Amino acid sequence: MATSIATMENPSVVLYGPGNVKIEDRPVEELGPRDVLVRIAFIGTCGSDVHFWKHGGITNKVDPQRGIVMGHEASGIIHSIGSEVTSISIGDHVAIEPGVPCRYCKACKNGTYNLCRKMRFAAAPATAGAPDTPGTLSKFWKIPEDFVHRLPDSISLEEAVLVEPLSVAIHATKLADIRPGETVVIMGSGTVGLLCAAAARNFGAQRIALVDVLEKKLVFAKGWLPGCEVFKVDTNATSEANAKALLGQLRLKDEGVDAVIEASGAASSIATGIHILRLGGKFVQTGLGQPKVEFPIVALSEKELMVRGCFRYASGDFELAVHLLQDEKVNVKSFISSFVDFEDTPQAWERTAIGEGIKNLIRGVQD
Amino acid sequence: MATSIATMENPSVVLYGPGNVKIEDRPVEELGPRDVLVRIAFIGTCGSDVHFWKHGGITNKVDPQRGIVMGHEASGIIHSIGSEVTSISIGDHVAIEPGVPCRYCKACKNGTYNLCRKMRFAAAPATAGAPDTPGTLSKFWKIPEDFVHRLPDSISLEEAVLVEPLSVAIHATKLADIRPGETVVIMGSGTVGLLCAAAARNFGAQRIALVDVLEKKLVFAKGWLPGCEVFKVDTNATSEANAKALLGQLRLKDEGVDAVIEASGAASSIATGIHILRLGGKFVQTGLGQPKVEFPIVALSEKELMVRGCFRYASGDFELAVHLLQDEKVNVKSFISSFVDFEDTPQAWERTAIGEGIKNLIRGVQD
Amino acid sequence: MATSIATMENPSVVLYGPGNVKIEDRPVEELGPRDVLVRIAFIGTCGSDVHFWKHGGITNKVDPQRGIVMGHEASGIIHSIGSEVTSISIGDHVAIEPGVPCRYCKACKNGTYNLCRKMRFAAAPATAGAPDTPGTLSKFWKIPEDFVHRLPDSISLEEAVLVEPLSVAIHATKLADIRPGETVVIMGSGTVGLLCAAAARNFGAQRIALVDVLEKKLVFAKGWLPGCEVFKVDTNATSEANAKALLGQLRLKDEGVDAVIEASGAASSIATGIHILRLGGKFVQTGLGQPKVEFPIVALSEKELMVRGCFRYASGDFELAVHLLQDEKVNVKSFISSFVDFEDTPQAWERTAIGEGIKNLIRGVQD
Amino acid sequence: MATSIATMENPSVVLYGPGNVKIEDRPVEELGPRDVLVRIAFIGTCGSDVHFWKHGGITNKVDPQRGIVMGHEASGIIHSIGSEVTSISIGDHVAIEPGVPCRYCKACKNGTYNLCRKMRFAAAPATAGAPDTPGTLSKFWKIPEDFVHRLPDSISLEEAVLVEPLSVAIHATKLADIRPGETVVIMGSGTVGLLCAAAARNFGAQRIALVDVLEKKLVFAKGWLPGCEVFKVDTNATSEANAKALLGQLRLKDEGVDAVIEASGAASSIATGIHILRLGGKFVQTGLGQPKVEFPIVALSEKELMVRGCFRYASGDFELAVHLLQDEKVNVKSFISSFVDFEDTPQAWERTAIGEGIKNLIRGVQD
Repeated sequence: MATSIATMENPSVVLYGPGNVKIEDRPVEELGPRDVLVRIAFIGTCGSDVHFWKHGGITNKVDPQRGIVMGHEASGIIHSIGSEVTSISIGDHVAIEPGVPCRYCKACKNGTYNLCRKMRFAAAPATAGAPDTPGTLSKFWKIPEDFVHRLPDSISLEEAVLVEPLSVAIHATKLADIRPGETVVIMGSGTVGLLCAAAARNFGAQRIALVDVLEKKLVFAKGWLPGCEVFKVDTNATSEANAKALLGQLRLKDEGVDAVIEASGAASSIATGIHILRLGGKFVQTGLGQPKVEFPIVALSEKELMVRGCFRYASGDFELAVHLLQDEKVNVKSFISSFVDFEDTPQAWERTAIGEGIKNLIRGVQD
Repeated sequence: MATSIATMENPSVVLYGPGNVKIEDRPVEELGPRDVLVRIAFIGTCGSDVHFWKHGGITNKVDPQRGIVMGHEASGIIHSIGSEVTSISIGDHVAIEPGVPCRYCKACKNGTYNLCRKMRFAAAPATAGAPDTPGTLSKFWKIPEDFVHRLPDSISLEEAVLVEPLSVAIHATKLADIRPGETVVIMGSGTVGLLCAAAARNFGAQRIALVDVLEKKLVFAKGWLPGCEVFKVDTNATSEANAKALLGQLRLKDEGVDAVIEASGAASSIATGIHILRLGGKFVQTGLGQPKVEFPIVALSEKELMVRGCFRYASGDFELAVHLLQDEKVNVKSFISSFVDFEDTPQAWERTAIGEGIKNLIRGVQD
Repeated sequence: MATSIATMENPSVVLYGPGNVKIEDRPVEELGPRDVLVRIAFIGTCGSDVHFWKHGGITNKVDPQRGIVMGHEASGIIHSIGSEVTSISIGDHVAIEPGVPCRYCKACKNGTYNLCRKMRFAAAPATAGAPDTPGTLSKFWKIPEDFVHRLPDSISLEEAVLVEPLSVAIHATKLADIRPGETVVIMGSGTVGLLCAAAARNFGAQRIALVDVLEKKLVFAKGWLPGCEVFKVDTNATSEANAKALLGQLRLKDEGVDAVIEASGAASSIATGIHILRLGGKFVQTGLGQPKVEFPIVALSEKELMVRGCFRYASGDFELAVHLLQDEKVNVKSFISSFVDFEDTPQAWERTAIGEGIKNLIRGVQD
Repeated sequence: MATSIATMENPSVVLYGPGNVKIEDRPVEELGPRDVLVRIAFIGTCGSDVHFWKHGGITNKVDPQRGIVMGHEASGIIHSIGSEVTSISIGDHVAIEPGVPCRYCKACKNGTYNLCRKMRFAAAPATAGAPDTPGTLSKFWKIPEDFVHRLPDSISLEEAVLVEPLSVAIHATKLADIRPGETVVIMGSGTVGLLCAAAARNFGAQRIALVDVLEKKLVFAKGWLPGCEVFKVDTNATSEANAKALLGQLRLKDEGVDAVIEASGAASSIATGIHILRLGGKFVQTGLGQPKVEFPIVALSEKELMVRGCFRYASGDFELAVHLLQDEKVNVKSFISSFVDFEDTPQAWERTAIGEGIKNLIRGVQD
């Protein structure tokens, strides 16, 4: 991917299929009265980018003719604004909430806009409800004013890329209904798992344990979130055995834990999570893995568990994420592992693919 | 099982193991100040009785030395009361709530006494939390005053046996958070499934569909709950295909239903239930079957579903069940399929085992 | 108000101040891509119309230069649609939800669009958040497609005017969190009070009592909602005395009632409502009266009551109102007391002002 | 009150009426199987003690013949235990939850035992539901095992007296449904107000403002809860004016605050609290003052506020209070202002009566 972008108006990273990416000059979209145009500063990479890069999509695949502009985690600076924009000004630094719902449907109007069937989400190929939506890997990006979130001076544009995954974690923590004093176990210590742990602490959790199969992730976790407990999964043992060992370590053998946030997507981890819950405990599934897993359904019934799916973020999640960063209640600086230039975007995806670093950033187009 | 019971003070049906049952004279328990002694009038039979009769227990097995007095659905007449009883009088007709919690633990004190680890439930063999608890298949049965529910004249003692399964259904309907105007699908049209449908209607559900594999159950359902819709599962088709066909019949292909109450326990039925839900839909599992099932976990996440386990009944469920019968908002008379005498208890279990009738009753000991 | 309207394109009833109303030809607003134009069929009158007619406004007054087109309860037929409208067709009969929120603010996005500060509500004079909004007393009226609610054939356009007040009642009933089996008292038996009673029944309330100072209203209530109880307030007695008498009549002296919906706005009625509640009871204020009242605040604390304000309607309320009418679970036909022609609008307000009839309708402009 | 108590088995401070107190030897109550006997270590004083001391009771008055043993905030050491006690051991240090509900009624069983009509609360004169209940101002005090809360070593017996008022604050904060990121205003900076502020912070409140009429209290607040904001009420201004000034200071003029916890009981403070709330805001009344106040009821409706009464504490509140002290998330050491000996109890009440110090403690009987 060697392309001269100096002469382009709006250079954009376009994926046409597995491993097939080009930098192209895509037109800058015209602003409606309440839209803003963001000059993109930094773009993050996550597992779903890798999935697109490797497989050309997840459920919906990229159209090989039209391609799709990649990228959904991003920060930037307001470049221009529509005629009726009042909440934000040119030059403001912003975190980007990369999915814009239709605002007209039942889901939009009852407080669950993340469930809008016509959601236009950055870098999403066309669905029944919406056409192709370009992603944030462009020089300029258009979005309505209420889906950019102004950053205070204390939050850098680099950190601001993490507002998106922190919002995912906040959404999961809300759905888990974490209450002060509770014991919470997070299955999986990747970016989202770690951020769920930090979010749970801010919701008042008294004890937080992070679970993973990789020692190095748990070591990072212990340093990053002082006071958290960690548990290394025995991959040769059953879910029941891991559950028993974990509860033993937590000294909660006879009780179980109040809540589990599953952030790995692994089938065995899901089962372990169910087995460690107390009667009446709460479980939220944020990780995505195999479409179907073997699930301990009788445990669900006999313990009268509450199990929630969890999809992206909705009202108030980005706002709270910005607050938590601003008040230094969550620290994401140490998550930023590397930078690549816009032209080298696939390198960031490759690093993420092999598990190098936590968050690998891509710089926006430089002048 | 031929035993003369005329001379016994408290004849009781005692199970010692699979197929091994005797009528014995068990001592009448002494009343504490807030206990009442019930002269048992009628006892119901359900799937769990059959399981005990065939296998000697479910998770916990009967001790072959001590045996266990069977029975947990029952009605009766107050025979005597403790010194401090004020809420009920000798001669009152009552429905029996057959599980008494410890009243001291966190679960008891936060409104979820059904999750008490020291629960003493009728006909339950000893657990870590509680010793053997005798069941209601006795002439006399002791219970605290707040776990009998006084019957108005309009509810017969025969019908009152159904207060227990109706309470199960009410509990499930509450957990499913059924709201007026919603569309609810009940998977499984046995006693509990039917009663869930009736409960959902009383919670305001606008459309109710009952799903089963047996045509005759659906025919009964249609007659019993006018206006309900029914769907016969194609047992040769996949869960996805059944889900699609069901939504097609309901004309909700693009939307899905608001809530599912799963009352069959069958793995395929659970999967179908998940697939027919709308984004943000609600699912309650009341049926018990295989301990583990293949579960569409990504659908859970992507639709941000709420899935609840459901265990027995708790505060207010029996009271509401009595109200609904009293106001004729639920009709259980047509559920009563047969009667046998106390001495012939196993016959009722056998009928239930082969799916004969809906609710087969056992008469209490006659004078 | 004698005006020839035959030649006007869009005759509209415009209020310029107390008692000062004219029929004028106001321009038909241009449709945006998701707007529809409704040919208005019937318009209702309510207390707030009377307040405008008598006082030129409530909190915000009509601008005497610009005037305001009156009317907010209305039904009609779709006359034309914008280029992107998909949910509704020309010729459809609709009930009108007369307030359109901004769709961009926090309130709009978290499921409480009724609390949008930029709400444009029919016949509302300009506020800080919004300019003058014309009302429904016009031949044609523009509104986005999601704020008209299609009517099934079984609901007449006359009845459809009542969908608005029924939605008010549904919203109040939701906020009161009425649960099956509960005892609910409605203070005030006007249109909204009666509809709250009917809504509460559909939410499963077991006992419903309507309270008023006027015998004739209670007589109507008893005929309209079979099984409801009624209580006539003694206007010479204190709130405490009325509360005691009411609980005595309900045979709930030692317990109190589960929920109160206050639909009169009278100070004494509010106090009575608080006094009759059980420990932990629920109270919703829908009626508007004096801005400040003497309130039994220690009773609020000692009984740990939940008291909710209630403002118009939000997501799902109109949909449920249409469902309840369609399924004949609420009957509003007997509420329609009189009709006047469009040209005679003030006559309908005058009838309402003197308490004549329940709902006095105005016919839309005839060809 | 000069009495030799050396020879008494169970010296107790008994109030017979206003200003009439004696130390008497009251019998040690016999333990039931699940009771424990606490050797009282420290007893707190609060406004209600003062009210009893000055007026002989609040709603219910002391019987002048029988008198009542005073005291309800207390800590101690387990002296002996009943035959079935398992959760606590002799020698354990405990905080005392001084109200024991009946465990049988609806309120007890649905998670709101604070609303039990038969509650036996320390130092409470007889009511319809319960006889006189002796208070904690005794050498020994009997209570069921689940109403003492074991203290870790890190919490002193002196601090433990504050667990009771902290539980009041936690209960209020739960009812106010404080969520991470919210702005919360506490009206009144006495013991409970301060503890509500600390509790709100632990529930995630982003901004907390304390309001009082006394400068010195606000100075203490700022030192005690770093980062909190304070506002001094202008007692010459109206509630509306104070509300406006407070919102101005908070830079929330156009929005209002998310939640108010009213901990003063003053009528003007209640009105100010209502006026500063945002649309949809939440208000909890914990302070007790005049039984009736002038209340802005139209603001309640138009802003669709949620207003909760708040009564004592219920399931989980004491447990969380102990957690927060243990984890040093709340610091109550600086609240302890003075100590008096058991024999000098009235001195502590007098100090509290004149507003001297925050928490004046009484030492338990010394050997």
